[in-house]
Amino acid sequence: MTLLGISTRECQQLIEPLLSDSGGFEQWEHHTAAIFARVVWSFLSEPGDSIAGHIVEVMGAAHALQTLIQGRTSVEEFLKSLSEAQSSELLIRMSKADLAEGLGRWVPRLNLSRSETALRQLALLKAKLLIPILEQWPAGLSDLGPHQPMVLWARGQIGQWDRLQRSIALVGARASTAYGEHVVMELATGLANHGVEIVSGGAYGIDGIAHRAALANQSSTTAILAGGIDRFYPVGHDALFSRILERGLILAESAPGTPPTRWRFLQRNRLIAAITQATIVIEAGYRSGSLNTAGHAQQLGRPLGVVPGPITSATSAGCHRLIREYGAECITGVDEALEMVGDQGGQYMAEPGLFDKDELRVLDALSTRTGRDSHTLAEQAGFTVHEVQTVLGLLELKNLASRVDNLWIKRQAEIP
Amino acid sequence: MTLLGISTRECQQLIEPLLSDSGGFEQWEHHTAAIFARVVWSFLSEPGDSIAGHIVEVMGAAHALQTLIQGRTSVEEFLKSLSEAQSSELLIRMSKADLAEGLGRWVPRLNLSRSETALRQLALLKAKLLIPILEQWPAGLSDLGPHQPMVLWARGQIGQWDRLQRSIALVGARASTAYGEHVVMELATGLANHGVEIVSGGAYGIDGIAHRAALANQSSTTAILAGGIDRFYPVGHDALFSRILERGLILAESAPGTPPTRWRFLQRNRLIAAITQATIVIEAGYRSGSLNTAGHAQQLGRPLGVVPGPITSATSAGCHRLIREYGAECITGVDEALEMVGDQGGQYMAEPGLFDKDELRVLDALSTRTGRDSHTLAEQAGFTVHEVQTVLGLLELKNLASRVDNLWIKRQAEIP
Repeated sequence: MTLLGISTRECQQLIEPLLSDSGGFEQWEHHTAAIFARVVWSFLSEPGDSIAGHIVEVMGAAHALQTLIQGRTSVEEFLKSLSEAQSSELLIRMSKADLAEGLGRWVPRLNLSRSETALRQLALLKAKLLIPILEQWPAGLSDLGPHQPMVLWARGQIGQWDRLQRSIALVGARASTAYGEHVVMELATGLANHGVEIVSGGAYGIDGIAHRAALANQSSTTAILAGGIDRFYPVGHDALFSRILERGLILAESAPGTPPTRWRFLQRNRLIAAITQATIVIEAGYRSGSLNTAGHAQQLGRPLGVVPGPITSATSAGCHRLIREYGAECITGVDEALEMVGDQGGQYMAEPGLFDKDELRVLDALSTRTGRDSHTLAEQAGFTVHEVQTVLGLLELKNLASRVDNLWIKRQAEIP
Repeated sequence: MTLLGISTRECQQLIEPLLSDSGGFEQWEHHTAAIFARVVWSFLSEPGDSIAGHIVEVMGAAHALQTLIQGRTSVEEFLKSLSEAQSSELLIRMSKADLAEGLGRWVPRLNLSRSETALRQLALLKAKLLIPILEQWPAGLSDLGPHQPMVLWARGQIGQWDRLQRSIALVGARASTAYGEHVVMELATGLANHGVEIVSGGAYGIDGIAHRAALANQSSTTAILAGGIDRFYPVGHDALFSRILERGLILAESAPGTPPTRWRFLQRNRLIAAITQATIVIEAGYRSGSLNTAGHAQQLGRPLGVVPGPITSATSAGCHRLIREYGAECITGVDEALEMVGDQGGQYMAEPGLFDKDELRVLDALSTRTGRDSHTLAEQAGFTVHEVQTVLGLLELKNLASRVDNLWIKRQAEIP
């Protein structure tokens, strides 16, 4: 059996080093063609190409790829290779024009040797593959439907991928302020302490500090890149990425060798939003890219939190916009962030009972120096004598008033 | 005809100096008894005494007061002085126990000479009376129903009372920070510039700066006090209150001579919320009294705004709590504050169109130095050649790309 002119054995040899041990050969053996085809698809299509996503869902990755390789690259030829059921399903999901455009996009990139070379290089980097059809796949991503990645390229502590089941994205401005840096440090440390995986984009500013705080806490952290897994970006974070590899995960959807572009950053943001249980924007300018991540989180129905800041800070303007226009939740501390992933916060306990309004009125009428009888107090507080006596009794119990003969004074106890 | 043992003529002589000129004697002449009785009620009952409010609504202030003065101070005696319709209406609104408690509260305070003395003193201070049954009454207060004040005591530019029809309450912590002070200064100045009356409580901190900013802008401002109109509180703001008298209004519900107490502060807050179209809390601690004003605003269905601040500032904790727990609107500038009173803000114009996602992908593929043909660009951007040519045409129109022979380059124009 051959796939794309490559024998199944060759495919297996290419793929095996990239599958994590716990996947086990038995598990993926009969998926060889599908896995290899998904890898190739990740070179053919841009992140978030939903036309490619639909085709792979309907036809399977291998069948779709083989059809292209066999030169059936006109719409009619392509459709002929499908069963009637598949063909009609496909045409429910997209127009023929969509399909034609897709074919026009993918065919010029059909270059299997590029995929082969990349796979060999990645094996040397000890990179791994996560594939939707295998066990090791972050559950949140399937909410993306046809926008789901073909594969995820992963480096670092791959065995920890399931930590993403309880994760929060902390994202924000590259040009962060001291305030934002302080806040993300506190939040990331607190969340990491509670075993929450901190996910971010590896960028300068807020992202970088989120990762660093988790690492400083001896915790794992996950960075999701916009470009290929073989070229970390930004280069100024090379040392940070090396430390993440030792303790956490680095993931990318774009094929190896792909440079990060603005489009790919925007698509990367959808992954950050989808892979986590909640997203918190720490600092963001009025048009920050973090608003894009926030938009994805909200589209996916994930809780969206925002840290407010001074309205005099341009770097908080995007955060306030998210509160005003998107109804994002205002997050002021670790407990509130934990509530977003279903944990009960502990810091704000039930309010100790404030004074009953009647008690307040009687306390107002009492003096700490001059004893007053209940008739005087009743008149001053605007109560009946009977009422005021009841309230005085309560205040006495609370140690806030005391009686000498028939005169009442207020105890010095400070009122909260 | 006599009222409470005082002749109508005497009542008129007491009241006339306290009614604003524009009210005109003809207008209030036949209300003499009701006006005088409301004044007395404001001495008998504490602010917000809804039992008194209901009784005055059902019986009229004068009839209710006369009944008390005639010694009908047991529940049964009191009810006998009502018509059957009035009596049953009253018992729909309150229980006999409520009524008994009310009578018990008011009767010990029945002291007409106190009211008389106060009225004479107020005339010397050029204070005026605002009464719900006359024309000059801030419309918002009637939303308080039976919690509406019996009267309002006023000093300053009384003719400007109708400026309250377009007013915003700016309230906040006494222990304000430099941040809060800067913000309230900006907001008050901007709002005053747009002709909005700034209302606050005359306290230290945020309140005081709100008033000062309006005055510095040559605008009016209104302070609402918790104690009597004849004793300004806090005394440290005497100079400020004098300046408000020259240009704005000082209002109080509590009878003259009444000291401010915590209960009266809480009740005063309901007036600030009711008299304005919207309330904005600038800075507030986690249990600040401003939260009480905010709660009143929300109960009354008034828009409630909050200025966010650093989550590291305890003085903003109450503000964030209002956003989280009460759904208060996040206010970051004058335009947003103006929207709360129905004005269109002007600062944030329609967004200039961001790049279409297709344009972004092609821009990413273009270089500013190396010319590229459309086939190369199509492959890099993941488009068909036809698609990429369409997008390139748009970019050329926008002056963002240009063609030399068949090669395209990106123009240097900075991308927003």
